[in-house]
Amino acid sequence: MKNTYPALQKQIPKIISKHVYGNLYKINLSLLTDLQFLTKMVVESARLGNLHIVELATKKFSDVNGIPGGVSIIAILEESHIALHTWPESGYATLDIYSCGQESDPEASFKYIVSELDPKKQKVWYADRSNK
Amino acid sequence: MKNTYPALQKQIPKIISKHVYGNLYKINLSLLTDLQFLTKMVVESARLGNLHIVELATKKFSDVNGIPGGVSIIAILEESHIALHTWPESGYATLDIYSCGQESDPEASFKYIVSELDPKKQKVWYADRSNK
Repeated sequence: MKNTYPALQKQIPKIISKHVYGNLYKINLSLLTDLQFLTKMVVESARLGNLHIVELATKKFSDVNGIPGGVSIIAILEESHIALHTWPESGYATLDIYSCGQESDPEASFKYIVSELDPKKQKVWYADRSNK
Repeated sequence: MKNTYPALQKQIPKIISKHVYGNLYKINLSLLTDLQFLTKMVVESARLGNLHIVELATKKFSDVNGIPGGVSIIAILEESHIALHTWPESGYATLDIYSCGQESDPEASFKYIVSELDPKKQKVWYADRSNK
């Protein structure tokens, strides 16, 4: 790699990135179709994790055969992103909270969303997205 | 969980979701600041993986001390999402391609982006986001 920035020629800056993600099962169906509730929840989760939203994209999918469509909410953060997807027909949602920097607390954001959705079962993983 | 949709009372529909994600190192710095190039690349990667973009959010971060800021691109897909973050100062990027359904090929999307960015090193993981 040719490094064209003189200040960086001696070393590559370290990026500290933490990614918490989970599969959330057996959630009350009515919560998973409520775009307004879910969007407010994502915004509040960012605040609690000291994450800063710079762009927010949302999508409410259409109903199919009388079954309400799910919701996708993605926030670009100064620190990376939050992604929530819901499948009301299955009482299911997935959540990704990915942050860089040492001053954020993605687990606090994650725990808040879990407390709001109250899944009866969950699987949670952690990924190291640092450049080490 | 109280299931309020009669058609679903007998069983919970299966969601098949695949999430491919990676850390990409030692990328040519000039590529990592080029929002137009990277956006076009993400759109093409979706096409190749049979993924369908419904919302696209992008952010070009400000320069700091003469070092160009990175880029974040997030696509909400009918099938879930693509998320790309770049750190030009470190020649580093991370990529998440997360799709549901059996007709998409997130690995094809992932491989295309890797071929375009040409990192000299990469780490790749797979996560099962299905509701099994």
